[in-house]
Formats: sequence, C-alpha cells, structure tokens
Amino acid sequence: MNKTVDFYFDFSSPYGFFSSEVMDEFSLRCNCEIIWRPYVMGAVMKLTGRKPLVQIPMVNEYSARDLDRVARYHRIEFSVPSVFPISSVAPSRAFYWIRNEFGSEKAKQFAQAIFRAYFVKNLNISKPPTVVEVATELDFDTKAVNDALENPEIKLKVREETDRAIEQGVFGSPFFIVDEEPFWGHDRLNHVESWLVSGGW
Amino acid sequence: MNKTVDFYFDFSSPYGFFSSEVMDEFSLRCNCEIIWRPYVMGAVMKLTGRKPLVQIPMVNEYSARDLDRVARYHRIEFSVPSVFPISSVAPSRAFYWIRNEFGSEKAKQFAQAIFRAYFVKNLNISKPPTVVEVATELDFDTKAVNDALENPEIKLKVREETDRAIEQGVFGSPFFIVDEEPFWGHDRLNHVESWLVSGGW
Repeated sequence: MNKTVDFYFDFSSPYGFFSSEVMDEFSLRCNCEIIWRPYVMGAVMKLTGRKPLVQIPMVNEYSARDLDRVARYHRIEFSVPSVFPISSVAPSRAFYWIRNEFGSEKAKQFAQAIFRAYFVKNLNISKPPTVVEVATELDFDTKAVNDALENPEIKLKVREETDRAIEQGVFGSPFFIVDEEPFWGHDRLNHVESWLVSGGW
Repeated sequence: MNKTVDFYFDFSSPYGFFSSEVMDEFSLRCNCEIIWRPYVMGAVMKLTGRKPLVQIPMVNEYSARDLDRVARYHRIEFSVPSVFPISSVAPSRAFYWIRNEFGSEKAKQFAQAIFRAYFVKNLNISKPPTVVEVATELDFDTKAVNDALENPEIKLKVREETDRAIEQGVFGSPFFIVDEEPFWGHDRLNHVESWLVSGGW
C-alpha cells in the first residue's frame, strides 16, 4: 500500500453510501489503504448552520433526482429511505465496538451492511434493535452488540471520533483526507484518485 | 450539432468561471451546442435561504482550498477576488444586450472576458465602468454599452432570464440542463458528458 485515505462519513448520508459501495474497488485501483471513519454529522451541522439538502427549497427536488441518477450511474441498488435523515449514533457505536474487538476489515463489512440496510432495505438504522439485527446477521453476538451500544467507553469513542473529525476540518459526508489534503463529496473521488496517482498538483 | 446544453451561471461564481473556461472544448468534444445563460443568483439565494460558501464556518476554509486546487487541476489562471461575492446585474445586462445586437458568439466572448476580468485580473465587475471597459476592449462602442446598462428593455431581459432560470429549477452556478435533465455544479460536467454521449441512463 502506498498511501492511506481517511474516509469520513455519516451513516445517514446517501452520498456516503455511494462512496462506501465503490471504496473497495477504489482501494485496489489506487493501491491505497482506506481508513473508514464514521462520525456523527449532526454535531457539525450545528457548528456550520447548514441544513440537510432535503430541507432546502428547490435543492430538495434536484437532490432526489441526482441521488437516483448517481445510483444508476454506478449501478448501485438504492432507494431514498422513508425516514430521512436520521441519527447515526447507534450504528457508529456498533462500528467502533466491532473495530476494537475484531479489527478494521470486520468493521468495514459491518459499515457496508448497515449502509445497505438503510439505503437498500429501508430499515431505520437509528434504532438499536435494527443495528443489532444487522450485526447478528454478520455473526456478531446479539447480547454483546446490545451491551456495546450502551457501553460508556464506546459512547465516548464516538464522541471523540466526531470531535477528531471536526478538528480535521471535516464538515460533510463523504469527506476524504489524503496527505492532509481535504476533499469533500462523492464527486471529488476523481480528484482524490488523481492526487494519489500524481502525488498532488 | 446533436444536442443543446443550457449553461446557467452567475458572473460572480468561481465554479461558473471554471466551467466557462472549459466549455468550448467541452462543446467540441461532445458535439453539442452550449447556450450561455447568465442569471442573477442573488434572487434565488433568497428563495432557498442558502448562503455563499464563503459565509459558512468550516466550509469557507475548505472552499478556498478547493477553488485553488480545481484551478490548478485544469491549469486555469485564477485568484479569489478581493471583493467577493458581488452583484452580477451589470455584466448580465451587457451580456444580453450584446447577444441581442451581435449574436451568441460575441456574447460568449464577452462572458469569457468578464469572468477573466473578475477571477484573473481582480477587477470589480459589479461596477458599470468596469463592464464598459471590458466591453470596449472587445471593440464594442463605449457609449452604446453605457446606454445598454440603463436600457429598461435590457434590465427587464435580465429579470426575465432570472425568472426563467428559477422556473426551470435552477438554483446554483454553474447549472446545466440537457433533455430537461438538470445537473448542478462544475463537478457534474462528467455526468453531463456521459449523458450526452450515452443518451441518458
């Protein structure tokens, strides 16, 4: 592996989902390691005063159309969830617990599964029972996941990771950092790729 | 020419400027006609409640960095103007007067020159004397341009074009429409190209 790419995202972000679906291929193609870093974007929205796109007149209609179009472009199965946006606290806790206990690869698989639960199967992943169900399907222990969601250390870890994201200047999802260079948005992945290949410009 | 692309932009928009610099090549490559459609985005910002990126905490710092990086990516000469953002009413009036009197090609050349006056030469293009100066350098008659900026029909034309943009769902700059399909942002040009080539997806 040449470089690492910090991949920041919020589990309720549709463009974050699209990136999550192409990240494995991206990693192989660019010969880079991806560090998956879920954080809770709600905390940042308060700092920036920004609103979710779906709450902005005119932008909301465009946004729905763009999401469907980007999904078709990548041939990714996708539908706008019936409850949107939602809190990503519970799935973020489960992610960091899995990473602590079982490592990055397992945590990545969980992240991909949680994203699909929300954006393909229309399950409300803000609810702890849904998070537990998704984790159980991946063979994690039901009781252990349930406990993890209420574990004070894990709760703290999610807050710390969110603070860390904000310190790094992260305010959107997805958001990539390579060589301390920040790239905001799924549609900047081509620039991230060019940056990795060329060493910057 | 196969298709036409409506290219909506505001003269104070840096990403609109970047698109303006690549549009001729884009048109040749995609074998399409570009209809240049300046409008006054301030009117739309009131409707959507959105703010310029430079006025949003965290986003402003990122934005400055992204602008420089996108400019370097395309090898476009660029600097953030010292007065930003500004009103685009005066240059928009000159544009539509030139289009009426001398046709689309001349109007396009004027648009490119005005954009460069603002984003390369750091001239405040919201000021009528600056607009007149840029037009004069392109051999338009100084007095005629001065008169055009106060011509009631031309004033009305800019308002009508802005209303037209809003009716079409345009809220950003640049904004492209092909086959009634809307694409927002300089970074959607690759999708516009793919759409033109493939006939949609």
